[in-house]
Amino acid sequence: MRNAGGERGLMNIGILGSGVVGQTIGAKLVERGHDVVLGTRSDKLDDKRGFGSSLREWLQKTGGKGRLATFAAAAAHGEVVINATAGMASLAALKLAGDGNLKGKILIDVANALDFSKGMPPTLAVSNMDSLGEQIQSALPQVKVVKTLNTMTASLMVDPGQLAGGDHHVFVSGNDAAAKVRVVELLKSWFGWRQVIDLGDITTARGTEMILPLWVRLWGALGTPMLNFKIVR
Amino acid sequence: MRNAGGERGLMNIGILGSGVVGQTIGAKLVERGHDVVLGTRSDKLDDKRGFGSSLREWLQKTGGKGRLATFAAAAAHGEVVINATAGMASLAALKLAGDGNLKGKILIDVANALDFSKGMPPTLAVSNMDSLGEQIQSALPQVKVVKTLNTMTASLMVDPGQLAGGDHHVFVSGNDAAAKVRVVELLKSWFGWRQVIDLGDITTARGTEMILPLWVRLWGALGTPMLNFKIVR
Repeated sequence: MRNAGGERGLMNIGILGSGVVGQTIGAKLVERGHDVVLGTRSDKLDDKRGFGSSLREWLQKTGGKGRLATFAAAAAHGEVVINATAGMASLAALKLAGDGNLKGKILIDVANALDFSKGMPPTLAVSNMDSLGEQIQSALPQVKVVKTLNTMTASLMVDPGQLAGGDHHVFVSGNDAAAKVRVVELLKSWFGWRQVIDLGDITTARGTEMILPLWVRLWGALGTPMLNFKIVR
Repeated sequence: MRNAGGERGLMNIGILGSGVVGQTIGAKLVERGHDVVLGTRSDKLDDKRGFGSSLREWLQKTGGKGRLATFAAAAAHGEVVINATAGMASLAALKLAGDGNLKGKILIDVANALDFSKGMPPTLAVSNMDSLGEQIQSALPQVKVVKTLNTMTASLMVDPGQLAGGDHHVFVSGNDAAAKVRVVELLKSWFGWRQVIDLGDITTARGTEMILPLWVRLWGALGTPMLNFKIVR
């Protein structure tokens, strides 16, 4: 379903999670004219959200066009839903979002199950024989989960041209071929991605999730999170 | 200690493991004039070694200059020793190599603990809270372990110029700063590496070892193992 601006590809988008990732993706999609609802459990508009702004600042940043709601309302709103929650909270957040509000939809999963409870740098709460992407797909069999964008910092997700004119890669993993084709289109039209690699089914999310420990160390070694992987061949 | 050609930087090098990785590194180092002993448990000269050649073919390829020996003799021979065994066999191989033959030396660890016992693609026998590099450093506290080259196919390890003129990265991890500086020099002089990132101490080997699941999937998606990661910033 397209909204009133359908001929320009404008969409209703639900984003679960109001930290820096959800805020960054949400603000960019509002900027591009989409109707965005950010799902959050927080009602504290003035608290800083981790690496992100306060929710009040986010609302201001969107010129009042972005909206806040519950996870369930955000999921119901979205033609496409984006999981931008902290990975260790994703399954609980998706439960709150509700099967019925997600059923049949594409769920773009950008989360990483980073576990900060054992000290820094974080480890992964799930890896190797399983992945968060697979756990979400198993929990929501009627949802088309596409894992992507989880291999970089939020700012780059929505503006890859900031680095090397966009000459680096983003990956997609998912079981539904048509949903992946659609997400690749969205990555290109929403954010300007030029280089997307389809890794295969949702089990390939193990690969992109397990790149996080290297990514964290590269941030440390290079002194900036503004980095990404280019696959040279 | 340098051998007769010391002014040209020629060295005695011990390589543990006679599969495709050990063979490829060994042949390249022989080609560059070094005195290479390949350590192996095999005495079957005509059996194909996994993805590699038979040991007889390897000896022929080196023009008779490469030599075969036990792990212990190869370790004793090397001023620098390279662990090119299969990761799941590395600790046992290093035990056979012997503490006394390795003590005080740089051990370049290029192995990955790929576990093929649970089907394809392989999983990792150690990851997330630990790494093979760390396990080796713990088992051999008097050895200077430097993890490197484990993020690509053997052919690229020794000839990065094959792809994009060498415009992609190799990583080093290790606790001994001087040993890492030396290994970076060797990567450049032996193989022509231009871009090396020092990730930090040996715990950063978790990052490069955990990239393997993505690497395996990229091979599948792209249809070739001739690929590498470039860190774009």
